[in-house]
Amino acid sequence: MAPKKLKIGVAGLGRMGKRHAINFLQSVPRAQLVAVSTPDAAEREWAKHALGPSGVAIYDDYGDMLDHDGLEAVCIASATAVHAKQAIAAIDAGKDVLCEKPLAITAATSQTVVDAAQRRPELKVMCGFSRRFDESYRDAHAKVQAGLIGRPSVLRSQTCDMLDPTGFFVGYAALSGGIFVDCSIHDIDLALWFFGEEGEARVKSVSAVGITAIEPELRTHNDRDNAVGIVEFADGRIVNLYASRMMAAGQEDTTEIIGTRGKITVNATPAANLVKVFEPGGVRHDMPKTYWDRFKPAFTQEAIEFTACCLDDKPVPVKLQTAVAAVRIGAALQESMITGKKVWFNGHGPHEHRAKI
Amino acid sequence: MAPKKLKIGVAGLGRMGKRHAINFLQSVPRAQLVAVSTPDAAEREWAKHALGPSGVAIYDDYGDMLDHDGLEAVCIASATAVHAKQAIAAIDAGKDVLCEKPLAITAATSQTVVDAAQRRPELKVMCGFSRRFDESYRDAHAKVQAGLIGRPSVLRSQTCDMLDPTGFFVGYAALSGGIFVDCSIHDIDLALWFFGEEGEARVKSVSAVGITAIEPELRTHNDRDNAVGIVEFADGRIVNLYASRMMAAGQEDTTEIIGTRGKITVNATPAANLVKVFEPGGVRHDMPKTYWDRFKPAFTQEAIEFTACCLDDKPVPVKLQTAVAAVRIGAALQESMITGKKVWFNGHGPHEHRAKI
Amino acid sequence: MAPKKLKIGVAGLGRMGKRHAINFLQSVPRAQLVAVSTPDAAEREWAKHALGPSGVAIYDDYGDMLDHDGLEAVCIASATAVHAKQAIAAIDAGKDVLCEKPLAITAATSQTVVDAAQRRPELKVMCGFSRRFDESYRDAHAKVQAGLIGRPSVLRSQTCDMLDPTGFFVGYAALSGGIFVDCSIHDIDLALWFFGEEGEARVKSVSAVGITAIEPELRTHNDRDNAVGIVEFADGRIVNLYASRMMAAGQEDTTEIIGTRGKITVNATPAANLVKVFEPGGVRHDMPKTYWDRFKPAFTQEAIEFTACCLDDKPVPVKLQTAVAAVRIGAALQESMITGKKVWFNGHGPHEHRAKI
Amino acid sequence: MAPKKLKIGVAGLGRMGKRHAINFLQSVPRAQLVAVSTPDAAEREWAKHALGPSGVAIYDDYGDMLDHDGLEAVCIASATAVHAKQAIAAIDAGKDVLCEKPLAITAATSQTVVDAAQRRPELKVMCGFSRRFDESYRDAHAKVQAGLIGRPSVLRSQTCDMLDPTGFFVGYAALSGGIFVDCSIHDIDLALWFFGEEGEARVKSVSAVGITAIEPELRTHNDRDNAVGIVEFADGRIVNLYASRMMAAGQEDTTEIIGTRGKITVNATPAANLVKVFEPGGVRHDMPKTYWDRFKPAFTQEAIEFTACCLDDKPVPVKLQTAVAAVRIGAALQESMITGKKVWFNGHGPHEHRAKI
Repeated sequence: MAPKKLKIGVAGLGRMGKRHAINFLQSVPRAQLVAVSTPDAAEREWAKHALGPSGVAIYDDYGDMLDHDGLEAVCIASATAVHAKQAIAAIDAGKDVLCEKPLAITAATSQTVVDAAQRRPELKVMCGFSRRFDESYRDAHAKVQAGLIGRPSVLRSQTCDMLDPTGFFVGYAALSGGIFVDCSIHDIDLALWFFGEEGEARVKSVSAVGITAIEPELRTHNDRDNAVGIVEFADGRIVNLYASRMMAAGQEDTTEIIGTRGKITVNATPAANLVKVFEPGGVRHDMPKTYWDRFKPAFTQEAIEFTACCLDDKPVPVKLQTAVAAVRIGAALQESMITGKKVWFNGHGPHEHRAKI
Repeated sequence: MAPKKLKIGVAGLGRMGKRHAINFLQSVPRAQLVAVSTPDAAEREWAKHALGPSGVAIYDDYGDMLDHDGLEAVCIASATAVHAKQAIAAIDAGKDVLCEKPLAITAATSQTVVDAAQRRPELKVMCGFSRRFDESYRDAHAKVQAGLIGRPSVLRSQTCDMLDPTGFFVGYAALSGGIFVDCSIHDIDLALWFFGEEGEARVKSVSAVGITAIEPELRTHNDRDNAVGIVEFADGRIVNLYASRMMAAGQEDTTEIIGTRGKITVNATPAANLVKVFEPGGVRHDMPKTYWDRFKPAFTQEAIEFTACCLDDKPVPVKLQTAVAAVRIGAALQESMITGKKVWFNGHGPHEHRAKI
Repeated sequence: MAPKKLKIGVAGLGRMGKRHAINFLQSVPRAQLVAVSTPDAAEREWAKHALGPSGVAIYDDYGDMLDHDGLEAVCIASATAVHAKQAIAAIDAGKDVLCEKPLAITAATSQTVVDAAQRRPELKVMCGFSRRFDESYRDAHAKVQAGLIGRPSVLRSQTCDMLDPTGFFVGYAALSGGIFVDCSIHDIDLALWFFGEEGEARVKSVSAVGITAIEPELRTHNDRDNAVGIVEFADGRIVNLYASRMMAAGQEDTTEIIGTRGKITVNATPAANLVKVFEPGGVRHDMPKTYWDRFKPAFTQEAIEFTACCLDDKPVPVKLQTAVAAVRIGAALQESMITGKKVWFNGHGPHEHRAKI
Repeated sequence: MAPKKLKIGVAGLGRMGKRHAINFLQSVPRAQLVAVSTPDAAEREWAKHALGPSGVAIYDDYGDMLDHDGLEAVCIASATAVHAKQAIAAIDAGKDVLCEKPLAITAATSQTVVDAAQRRPELKVMCGFSRRFDESYRDAHAKVQAGLIGRPSVLRSQTCDMLDPTGFFVGYAALSGGIFVDCSIHDIDLALWFFGEEGEARVKSVSAVGITAIEPELRTHNDRDNAVGIVEFADGRIVNLYASRMMAAGQEDTTEIIGTRGKITVNATPAANLVKVFEPGGVRHDMPKTYWDRFKPAFTQEAIEFTACCLDDKPVPVKLQTAVAAVRIGAALQESMITGKKVWFNGHGPHEHRAKI
C-alpha cells in the first residue's frame, strides 16, 4: 500500500509561488500538490500548462481552494499584504500552514496569525525562514551550538539582491514593508536563531541609515535601495545588517558570526557553482542570480520537513512567535532609517511606538 | 488523473545500491521504486526497514526481481563483476537499464552489453557516468562548447577518494578492475565528452605509473593506491590523470580543461559546504567525505533524466559505446602501470593486446 | 658618486617603532637610518644590538635626537599621546615628518600639527595611513577611479586584531583614543579616500554600538572590544565599520566598496600565504597574526615614497588635513558608542561638541 | 662606520637581467651593484638611464666586467647557452656566483660548473632556484619536514606561462633546452627538495608527452607548447609535471604535495593581489602576468641570502649538485617527449644515453 501523502495547495503564483508549486510537485515525495489559487489570469494560464497535466486544480479564489476536497495544508506565497489574512483563514478552516516570510509588515498584524494558531494548537503553522533549512547555515548553527566559537557576540549578515533593471522592486516596495522587513527579515531571524530564540525580548535599540543610490523613487514609498542597520541586544551582543537591491554580479547573502573563541562565515565568497574560467583579463566565476538560485535546496528541505511535521504530527522546527519578533525588529529598523532616530526597546518592542504598530 | 510513473527495481544494495534505492524512492517524482534485489541478507534486512514501508518488494534473486509484475526498468548497482551479466539479462527481459560504471573490467565484456542493447533498440540502456549530470560539469561543458576557451587541448582530472582506514578497498581491488578502471573511468569519460565522443578511436598511447604508498597489499591484486597516467590523442591532445585512495581530508574530484584561449576548472577547491571556521590555528573548512557527498544531486539528476527518457521515449544522454571506450582506455592504463610499458593504440584499442581483452 | 640619501631618525621603539626602524634600515635604499630615540631602557638595549652595528645613534631623549648632526627627517612611532607634540617639535626644527596614525586622539590636537605644518610649507609632513600604500588597496582605488563600479555608494570596512591573550590592549586603551580612533581610523581614512578627500565636510551623522565580549575592564577606559559604526554622508553614501580586538584566527582587515554598477572587495579571505593544508578534519590555511604581517610591504612602500618626496621635493601622497578629518569622525563614533546617542555633524564636525574637542 | 657591502655585477640585461640589476640596486641593503655587462647596445642604453645615475659601470664585454675594480660577485642572467661558460670564468677569477637556472641545457655541461666550483671551495656558487626562497614554498617545506602530511609520496607541479602573443618563445626555444629544461626545471628542483636532495640518484624512469596546440613551429626546435611528464622514483614516489606556454589568464605556478597523512597545496588559486571585482557577468580577479610578478619577493630574498652567504662566509642554501640533477631529469623528459619512448634511469642518469649528454 502506498504511504499517505499530504494534500497541499499553494496560494499565489507570482515568482515565489510558481517555485513553491513546482517544488511541492516535483521534489517533496510525501506531499501531493492538489490545488493552486491566484487572482491573476496570466498566472492561472501558466498553471494550466505547468501543473494541469499533473492533475492540480486551479482556482482564482483563495477561499474556493480552501474548500478543495481533501485539502490538508496550504503554502502561502501570495503578496505580503494578504499573508496574515490568508493564513488565518486557512487556520480557521483547519489547514496546516506554511507561510512565506514575513507574516505581515507590522508586528501587530503578525501577532494575529500567532493568536489564530494558538486557538488551533493541533495545526502546524510555520513561517518559512528558508535559511534555517540550508545545509550550510545548519552546519554553522550546529558548530556554534557545539561551542566551537565560544559565545557568539557579533553577527553580521546581509541580504543583497541582484539589481533588477526593470525596477520591479520600486512598485513592489509600496507593499513590502520596506527593505528591512522584506530583505533583512532573514538576517534578523538568523540573529534570533544564533543568539537564542528569546533574543527579541532583549533587544535594546536599533539604528539604521539608508540611501537611494539607484532608485530615488523608492523614497515615495518610504524605502531605500541600500541600508545598514545595527541591532543592540541587552545582553551585550550586536547584529550588523546590510541590505541592498543593487548588486551588479548576483545574489549575495553572506553571514558572519563572531564569537569569543572563533568566527564562522557562511557563503563569504558567493558562487553559482564550482566552475572557474581563466581567460584574458583574469579568473572569473558566475554568481547566483536570485535568492532561489542560492537557496533552492533549502526551500525543498523546508517543504519536506514541513510535510513530515504535518503527516507525523511533530512540532515545526521554527517557532511562530519568532516570526513576530523578527517583524518587530525589522519594522523598528525601517522606522529608524526613515526618521533618522535611534529606536529604543524596553523589553518587548520599541516602547514609544507600540501603540501604532 | 495522476501521470504515469516508471516502475523501477534496483539490483544490489551495497553502499551505492542503498543510495540509488533511496534516491529513486524519494527524489525522482516520475519513478516508482517497486523492487530491489540482493543476495546479501543484511542488505535485505536494511531494505525491510528502509524501503518496505513504502511498499517496495525485496528479492534475494536478481532474476526473480526481473519477473516482478509490471517492472519496466532496472538500476544496476551490484558488484562490477556482475554488471554486464545483469544488464544483458535485463535487456533480454525487455527492461530499460541504468547501469553503474564500469560496464565491466574489460572492453570485450563491456562490448557484450552494447551488443545486447543493439539487438533491442527500443530499450534505453545507459551507463551511469554521474559527472555528466553534475551542474558544474555541465556548465563547464556548455562553456567549452560555446568556444569560451578555444580548442580544448589538455585535460587534467582526478578521482581521489578519502582514505578508508578499514582498508575495505584492498579486498575490493580484487574485482574492481584496478584504480584506473574503477576511479579514473570517470575522468576518462570526461575526456571523451570534452574532446569529442569519437575521441577514443583516436587514442595514440597511454602511459602510467603507480605506487603503493599506504597499502602494499594492493600489489597482490595488481593494483596501486596512487597512480598517474597520460593519455595521448592522435589529434594533438593530452589527458593527465591522477587517482588516489589516500586523501586525508576528503573526496577530491577536480578537473581542469586547458584550451588555446582559456582554461576552465571544476571544483578546484573542494569543500563540503559554504561554511568556514576561523579559529586559533587558521581558517578551516570541511570536505565532502565520499563520492556521493560530492555528487548526490548529480545522481538524482541522472535518475530523473533516465526516467524521463524511458517514459518519453527519448535517447539517453550518454552513448553506451562511450562506456566501452572508457573501459578500454582505463584497462590499458592499468596495464601500463603494472607492466611499466607504454601502451600504443592503433585506431581502436591497444594493438598488441586486442586479442586478450 | 653615490646618490644622496635621506638621513632619518625613528622616535619610539615599541612594537611599531622597532619595525619602522628595521624597515628604514633594510628596505629603503634612498634613506639612511642615522638615529633612534626612546625613553625606554629595554628598547635602547634592543637598539644597541639590532641597530648599533649599522652605525645608528641611540638617544633616550627625543629632543637630543632632533639635534643629531645632519638629521633631515623623523618617523614618529611613539605613543599616540606624544605624536602631535613630537611632530610639531620636528617641524619647528625643520625636519620632514612621517607620523604614525593617528595624529592625536582629538581633532583639535590633530589640527595643531596641520597648523605647524602650514607654517613650514617647505617641509614634508605626512600621517602614515599605511593601507594607501598597499598594492591591493591601490589597485582597488584605481579601479574605482576608472569607473569600474559606477558611483561608490557603500563602503564596509573592518580592522580586526587577533586576540592578544596578554590583555596588553586593555592598558593601552587608556591612551589610544578608543577602538574607533585607534583601529577604525584606517577604515575611515579609506572612506575619505574612496569617497573623495573632501568627504569629511559632508559627514551628516555617526552612530555606533560597542560591547565588551571578552574584556569588561575596557569600560574603565570608556572603550569596548567589539564595535560597529555607521557614518552617513550628506551626499547619500554610507560607511559601515567593524572593529574588534577578539579575532581568534588572526588579523582580519577587509574592505568592500559597493557601487552602482559593481563591487570591489579587498582581502575578503585573509590568508598568511599561498599554502593550504588538507588534513583529517578539512582544509586549513594560516592567517596573518598582526597588522604588520598583513601590511609589511605597504609600510616599506610608504617609507620609500615618503623618502622620495623628501629627496625630490614632491608633495606627499596623503593630505595632512585628511588625518584631522579621520580623527574627528573616529572620535565622534567613539562618543556615540559611549553615550548611546547618534552624533550629528553640521558641516565640519559634530555640532554640539565642537567646543570640547 | 658603515657596514661592508658585497660589490656585485650582473651579466646580461635581458628581461631577467634588468630585474636582477634593479633588485640588487634597490632591495638588497648589504649588496652594492657596481657593474653590469651586456653585448646588446639597446640594453646598455637602458642601463645608462636606469643604473648609470647610481654609479653603476656598464660593460659590453663580460670579461671586462670581471676585471672591474673590487668586484666580488656576479649574478649571471644572460642567455642559458653562456651560463656555464660565464660561471666558470667568474669562478676562475675568484668571484662568488649566483647563476640563473638552468646551469646549462645538458647535465654534462652543468657538471663542468660544479667541477669548477669544487676547485675553488672558498667561493659561493649557487644556482638560482627562486621558488626555494618564496615564503609560501618555504612554509610548505617546513610543514612537510615537520611531518604534517606524513611521507610525501606524490608531487604535482606546474610552470605555466601566460601566452606571449609575440611568439618570442618560439625563437627562444632554439637555445632554451626545451620546455622541460626551461620551465619544469623549477618543479623538478622542488621535487628534489621535497623528496630529499639525493632523490635524483633514485629516479627510475621518466615519460612525457607534448603537443603544439598553438605554435607548431616549435617542432622545428624539437619543442612543444604544452607538455605533461611523469618522473618515477625508485623509492616509490611519483612526480607529475605540467608545463605550458599557453595560459590565457596569466602565470600559473602551482604545486601539490600529497603525503600519506595529508596534502599541501601552494598557490592553488593564483591571483595578482587581494582584490576581487563583482560585476555583471560574475566575480573576477586579476592574475600575475609573469614569473617575476609571482616571485619578485622570492628573487629579492634569494639575492639577500646569497649576499649574506658571501659576506658572512656561510654555505649557500641550495646545493649546486642538485642543479645538475635537475637538468639531467629535465633533459630526459624532453627526450622522452620527443622520441615517444620512456627513458629508464639506472642509478645516476638515463642509462642508454649517458654518453651523449
